[in-house]
Amino acid sequence: MPQSSPTPRRGRPGYDRQTLLAECVELFNRHGYEATSMGMLAAHLGISKSAIYHHVESKEAILGHALDDALDALEASMDRAQASGVAPGGQVERAIRGGLEVLVEKMPEVTLLLRLRGNSDVERAAMERRRDITRRLGEMIEAAQAEGSVRDDVTPRNLARLALGMINSVVDWYRPEGDAPGHKTVDEMVAAVTGVVMGGLRG
Amino acid sequence: MPQSSPTPRRGRPGYDRQTLLAECVELFNRHGYEATSMGMLAAHLGISKSAIYHHVESKEAILGHALDDALDALEASMDRAQASGVAPGGQVERAIRGGLEVLVEKMPEVTLLLRLRGNSDVERAAMERRRDITRRLGEMIEAAQAEGSVRDDVTPRNLARLALGMINSVVDWYRPEGDAPGHKTVDEMVAAVTGVVMGGLRG
Repeated sequence: MPQSSPTPRRGRPGYDRQTLLAECVELFNRHGYEATSMGMLAAHLGISKSAIYHHVESKEAILGHALDDALDALEASMDRAQASGVAPGGQVERAIRGGLEVLVEKMPEVTLLLRLRGNSDVERAAMERRRDITRRLGEMIEAAQAEGSVRDDVTPRNLARLALGMINSVVDWYRPEGDAPGHKTVDEMVAAVTGVVMGGLRG
Repeated sequence: MPQSSPTPRRGRPGYDRQTLLAECVELFNRHGYEATSMGMLAAHLGISKSAIYHHVESKEAILGHALDDALDALEASMDRAQASGVAPGGQVERAIRGGLEVLVEKMPEVTLLLRLRGNSDVERAAMERRRDITRRLGEMIEAAQAEGSVRDDVTPRNLARLALGMINSVVDWYRPEGDAPGHKTVDEMVAAVTGVVMGGLRG
């Protein structure tokens, strides 16, 4: 199916595919994926179940699209960090900043990814791609340890997990439209959190 | 009901209360609290539902006891950090080390706490206590910022959330009996992760 850009709704019951998927992800995050039925999605959208099936083949396909969306963007940001040609420590910093940018831009999809329990093949495949991202960050950190820019009293893999634990916590408290004192803009939050994570890695 | 220390099992179907609660928490973490029924708990323990009701009044009461267990220990470790009489930066470090120690000692109960969704009064009360712990750490961090021992380009509350995000990630990857290279003992892991978190806070 072609990825169409959002189009204006024609009449009440019309959704383009992207808007429909986004609404479903919102409901998954609110009630939990398991607890959300196609009937609940239809009621939330104000359309029939068959109108949903016009866009997607199943509830699991909706989940799969959302997870792919988050994982494709996270992998692309790792690719860019590794292809940047800067020293390993700089690659680590770019990977962290890039991950935070994706997390904010695709917060609903990343939130869904972080809450997976591995109850189906789709979930397990996504968790494997997530582990691979941790592995890649660990490799960058290992190279940065070798050049002396990252502390070496913790294994690279565990430092990657700690860094990602801090980064991922952002979905629990950051709201781009929030009026919390301090980081009013996404750029400021991303820069500040990147600084905290890198401070921890440098030791 | 009195909190008895574990006693040896007399015959196959006997459980002391503490062992029974621990087995229930393990099952909650494996299947999710919502998805775990009293029937599943009885089958897992190899006893009747009425034998469970001999020890606890309901599934929610089991959850409540486990959450109290984790929260009491976390609050006590915050109390000790604040009562230590050391400078604010040192209090922050003690709070982080103490939190990590509780997390490892009571990993199943803390894991349960971290996965709450707020679906009942018991869950919401536990989440409020958890928020209060974040608030207290934020206050310690604020005092440490005033003395210049913690970076001040991020709000105290957000630094507390980032630190706890890193600390809490430990439940997802650390296994005390694990043979991962590096942190073979609990003490080594706690010291190393405390160092990474404090490095991030100092900037």
